[in-house]
Amino acid sequence: MAMQQALWWLAPLSAIVALAMALYFYKRMMGFPEGDEKMRAIASFVRQGANAYLRRQYKVVAIFFVIFAVLLAIMAFALKVQSRWTPLAFLSGGLFSALSGYLGMRAATFASSRTTEGAKTSLNRALQVAFRSGAVMGLVVVGLALLYISIFFLFLTRILKFDLPRTTVTMLSFGMGASAQALFARVGGGIFTKAADVGADLVGKVEAGIPEDDPRNPATIADNVGDNVGDVAGMGADLYESYCNSILATCTLGVAAGLGFSGVAVPMAIAGLGTLFSILGIFMVRTHEEASQAQLLRGLNRGVYLSTILTFICAILVILWVLPEHKGLAVSALTGLLAGVIVGWSTQYYTSERYRPTRSIAEEAKTGPATVIIAGLSVGMQSIGIPVLVVAGGILVSFAFASGFTQPALGLFGIGLAAVGMLSTLGITLATDAYGPIADNAGGNAEMSGLGPEVRKRTDALDALGNTTAATGKGFAIGSAALTTLVLLAAYLQEVKANLVKIASGAADEVVPIEGAVSRLADLKAAGITFFIEKYNVHLMNPKVIVGMFLGAMMVLVFCSLTMRAVGRAASKMVEEVRRQFREIAGIMQGKAEPDYAACVDISTRAAQREMILPSLLALIIPIVAGLILGVAGVMGLLTGALAAGFAVAIMMANAGGAWDNAKKYIEGGQLGGKGSDAHKASVVGDTVGDPFKDTSGPSLNILLKLMSMVAVVSAGLVVKFAPVVAKFLHISF
Amino acid sequence: MAMQQALWWLAPLSAIVALAMALYFYKRMMGFPEGDEKMRAIASFVRQGANAYLRRQYKVVAIFFVIFAVLLAIMAFALKVQSRWTPLAFLSGGLFSALSGYLGMRAATFASSRTTEGAKTSLNRALQVAFRSGAVMGLVVVGLALLYISIFFLFLTRILKFDLPRTTVTMLSFGMGASAQALFARVGGGIFTKAADVGADLVGKVEAGIPEDDPRNPATIADNVGDNVGDVAGMGADLYESYCNSILATCTLGVAAGLGFSGVAVPMAIAGLGTLFSILGIFMVRTHEEASQAQLLRGLNRGVYLSTILTFICAILVILWVLPEHKGLAVSALTGLLAGVIVGWSTQYYTSERYRPTRSIAEEAKTGPATVIIAGLSVGMQSIGIPVLVVAGGILVSFAFASGFTQPALGLFGIGLAAVGMLSTLGITLATDAYGPIADNAGGNAEMSGLGPEVRKRTDALDALGNTTAATGKGFAIGSAALTTLVLLAAYLQEVKANLVKIASGAADEVVPIEGAVSRLADLKAAGITFFIEKYNVHLMNPKVIVGMFLGAMMVLVFCSLTMRAVGRAASKMVEEVRRQFREIAGIMQGKAEPDYAACVDISTRAAQREMILPSLLALIIPIVAGLILGVAGVMGLLTGALAAGFAVAIMMANAGGAWDNAKKYIEGGQLGGKGSDAHKASVVGDTVGDPFKDTSGPSLNILLKLMSMVAVVSAGLVVKFAPVVAKFLHISF
Repeated sequence: MAMQQALWWLAPLSAIVALAMALYFYKRMMGFPEGDEKMRAIASFVRQGANAYLRRQYKVVAIFFVIFAVLLAIMAFALKVQSRWTPLAFLSGGLFSALSGYLGMRAATFASSRTTEGAKTSLNRALQVAFRSGAVMGLVVVGLALLYISIFFLFLTRILKFDLPRTTVTMLSFGMGASAQALFARVGGGIFTKAADVGADLVGKVEAGIPEDDPRNPATIADNVGDNVGDVAGMGADLYESYCNSILATCTLGVAAGLGFSGVAVPMAIAGLGTLFSILGIFMVRTHEEASQAQLLRGLNRGVYLSTILTFICAILVILWVLPEHKGLAVSALTGLLAGVIVGWSTQYYTSERYRPTRSIAEEAKTGPATVIIAGLSVGMQSIGIPVLVVAGGILVSFAFASGFTQPALGLFGIGLAAVGMLSTLGITLATDAYGPIADNAGGNAEMSGLGPEVRKRTDALDALGNTTAATGKGFAIGSAALTTLVLLAAYLQEVKANLVKIASGAADEVVPIEGAVSRLADLKAAGITFFIEKYNVHLMNPKVIVGMFLGAMMVLVFCSLTMRAVGRAASKMVEEVRRQFREIAGIMQGKAEPDYAACVDISTRAAQREMILPSLLALIIPIVAGLILGVAGVMGLLTGALAAGFAVAIMMANAGGAWDNAKKYIEGGQLGGKGSDAHKASVVGDTVGDPFKDTSGPSLNILLKLMSMVAVVSAGLVVKFAPVVAKFLHISF
Repeated sequence: MAMQQALWWLAPLSAIVALAMALYFYKRMMGFPEGDEKMRAIASFVRQGANAYLRRQYKVVAIFFVIFAVLLAIMAFALKVQSRWTPLAFLSGGLFSALSGYLGMRAATFASSRTTEGAKTSLNRALQVAFRSGAVMGLVVVGLALLYISIFFLFLTRILKFDLPRTTVTMLSFGMGASAQALFARVGGGIFTKAADVGADLVGKVEAGIPEDDPRNPATIADNVGDNVGDVAGMGADLYESYCNSILATCTLGVAAGLGFSGVAVPMAIAGLGTLFSILGIFMVRTHEEASQAQLLRGLNRGVYLSTILTFICAILVILWVLPEHKGLAVSALTGLLAGVIVGWSTQYYTSERYRPTRSIAEEAKTGPATVIIAGLSVGMQSIGIPVLVVAGGILVSFAFASGFTQPALGLFGIGLAAVGMLSTLGITLATDAYGPIADNAGGNAEMSGLGPEVRKRTDALDALGNTTAATGKGFAIGSAALTTLVLLAAYLQEVKANLVKIASGAADEVVPIEGAVSRLADLKAAGITFFIEKYNVHLMNPKVIVGMFLGAMMVLVFCSLTMRAVGRAASKMVEEVRRQFREIAGIMQGKAEPDYAACVDISTRAAQREMILPSLLALIIPIVAGLILGVAGVMGLLTGALAAGFAVAIMMANAGGAWDNAKKYIEGGQLGGKGSDAHKASVVGDTVGDPFKDTSGPSLNILLKLMSMVAVVSAGLVVKFAPVVAKFLHISF
């Protein structure tokens, strides 16, 4: 036990180290010179815009959180279908997620002009500033998540003296705060950034013919703000959520599989080790002047691979040491790490201009925009093949090695370890991801401050690299979302079981009789997956399951429709505003008058706030409604249907969007007629369609899947208790 | 029993009446004057092209059928995992499907110039010719299907003396021939028609600036041929397949539910009654000169509604009479009829220019092609809401009323009756669908023969109506595909059970030991759904099921990718050929030289033959491979995942395509700047992207779902026997 205890403590300790390192990197970055007055002014504009957005966003989210916490409190105290700690956990979970988004974005907005200034000296210096500022984000996310989980675990076990099953099942519902906050961040940030981007491009580039990031374009600051709120804060909240929930769900499954405290200690130790090695990896990232794109990428990869390999080795040792009778679990953890890497490669293959798929889209630009769209959609749809096969294979392998197909509970824990393994090095993978928008902003800053071409060339090199790492990061985000959702599904049944035990033991005030309920409590406590499947008919011949699956697939597409439409509407408003400023502010095109940047930021902000409500509410309400009407079987159908369809559609959208973007860049690089040709114009259409695909709808889907599962977990008690009541009522009205 | 016998005979009798009426309508149509020499020549060109295509298509398909029949024969005679009658049934099923496609298309190609000639006289006369020729298709399809089923049923029960369960389970595999032939017809026809359409539009309309159907355009004949091979023959094969398989599967489920001969007689009687009332309805369709669009639609609807209502009333009477203890089944049948109608309405709402969704797409054309694409995709995704809710509700209601949620076997039969109910009036609904391309071709004929504007106006009125009915027809095709697939899924388990019984009873030569097989044969025979679920772990916590679901969703998108890419490639070839002819054939643009129409037809034909192979093979192979590796649970996951995702994507594609098409027409009607404006150009991009959506990938998905299920049914014996062997082998290699 002492050994497991020691391993467990790796998590909080590495959390503290991570947070300390984040602070160190932050201080170091702040110590760099900030550039001349113009550079500082531009950075300050962007920072103010980003902060203003985040303030407004958090205000809206706070209102929502309070309302939902009250509902949870009613569920907990009046209906007794929820732990009394859930409302608090929900609020604190959201708070920690919001905090990590804020801190990461703060670092990013302070880093951009410093990166530009660094680029005046050397490429390596610019890389150091940008990458280590990205590392602030990565380390804050994993540090806060591990700290949060550790503190609550100690609180429940030491202060409240909960036993392990009760602790893990209770903590599972803690993830919902992070999920809900992540959805708002992703959807809101995604709408903000793409409304600004599309608006800036359609009027600035296409109509007025001025280059990207030109200071005369009123939407250009909003565009740069968008990178921070969408790609930094949004992505951070997304992965904070995956990270938290995969660990929480895996601990629940480990305890449910009968592994006792080891079931908790192993996933937490792997996460802790991954964090420590991520820090080591971050220090390994450097490059030299005149580095080629490939060398830059190698510089980054050196750090990522080092931490991945070290984590892998230590994870094996931990499992062999603590759970020697379950050696297969080591394979499970490895599977996750490997799957993440392969999905990342596949994303690069389908979206990089160096490979055939993206070039084939560029080729189709010769016959106009329609063929570009058809080709892009086709490439996107084709690109789901490898990730699905890899993730599906990973699920089977991690399940099989953990369980030998004979102990399903252990197999599910194995899948959980695969998810934890995939995310264990999040500290550094998120750093490589968050550094992209910083470099992008640095380039924008250089352009707007009118710095020399050699500065812009260096920031461009970093930015291009950022696009590649962003693609990899998206692959990780999607892959981990799929595994996390699956693990949450498995954990859901533990939550259902816990509620059944509560009802059967009379712990609830009002015991609603459940048909065929197991009479003896001991039986129920021992009952595993089979019992659950049988009691609720969670099989593929139950029409409730099938109907749930239809609804799940529908939710995915309707959600995409809403978010895409939101971007379209917001972009239209932006187009009108930019046109108005060009028309009404005299001297703007001559650079004599300053455009009203704030007005554009405000439009994106308002649009994002308004448009994020409906899709987010859908994700929160549908699982509960489906649960009350269709019961546990319907919920499981809903979640699996959404998972299967959503995983495929999310990859399709991310990759189609990335491929369109790079097909355009390929043409802009001088191929097929280059900039200004008809082929280029056609490729711009593809890029514009791809914008909401890859930066709004696609990434939001990841969170949709996880949030719906989380809502199902939290509402399990409600559904178990009241679905039979609703069914009885509906039967009468038939 | 005599009463059930009498009801059963309704099916073959109505089949003979339907075929006789088809012959009568065909003779009547052939008696109409064919027009002047030019009209006849054009019609003959189109007919020759269509026949040449069908000959080539059937040749390729025949080779494939022979190969597959040999494989089935090996499965039947060597491996003993299949009925000895399956190879014959497979071949004959394909033959009947091919025959109905050929006959329907033959009538359509003879009818076009006669419709044009009729339009010289009056609108009503043109409608009569076109609609009754469409009715030939409708009646041939239902007539041949019912005749085929009836003959085989008599053969198995009377000559071979099979008992009812064995008869229905054996007959179930008969549907695969129709499924395979339908997929080839849909995919091949879809590629042909859209390659020609896109090619004709991109060069003719956009580059050369000549109108649609202009005789100077070399691809114009190919375009008209495409309407016949895609929209007539392809759609016919699709619905022949749904019709056949829904009846076969429902009979299997009826017998499995313990209803005995009534389980067969009731669905067959409903189909027979629907056919008789369809004929009545066809006679009710007429209109008068100067009829408005709405009046024309009312004219058609009068016939459809009349036959629907009469069929509904008689279906209730039949069920109350034959199965008085299962009154709920009447509700099930009604649910299907209603669901079909509502899905059709929803399709109209989302794709007609009279409503907001399509107009909103047209609005977005003001800001260019990118926003048109985003808006169209968004509308398409949103449009799946109603159909999913209606079909999901239909499944629940038909299941609940049939079973009260206590007898799942009866509930599944109820869902089957819903499918049969939805398709019972196929005779007339298919007529309203097939008449569209006839009217379209008639318009093309009028244009090419240079007839006066009043003729063209009348054919245009019919054509526009055809677009509306085509939308409804597509809704029906998709809705029925979903229900049929679901019913096939349920029937699949009967097939699995039958194979288990065979193995357990030692009927097979080599009995492969199956872990945990039920020892006593009697138990196995009595065992129902629960046994199946338990034995194969067909529940949502089995990773094989989840992996299967991932693969199913993946199949849907990869299949779409392949078919869309195929259209793109073929269209490029067509574009090059048309450009070549404009360049090399002197005097073509002055109308002095005749273009080489045959070369374009040939390009489409070759492309369709070549490109249909890979997607079709995927659909045939994946379910078998998945079955051998993942077992029955994986197959069920695959099929349900494909069903949930495919249903949603199919509706999305059909409706987005239809909405783009009509948004363009709306602008061409003079809105938002009208023809030639920038908005119009943007809308043309949407229409071109929508072409493969609505006429190739979307409709092919329907058949993909059904064919994969059919392959699963036919390979059930193989999977039951050999999946354990493969599993044993894989375990060793782990």
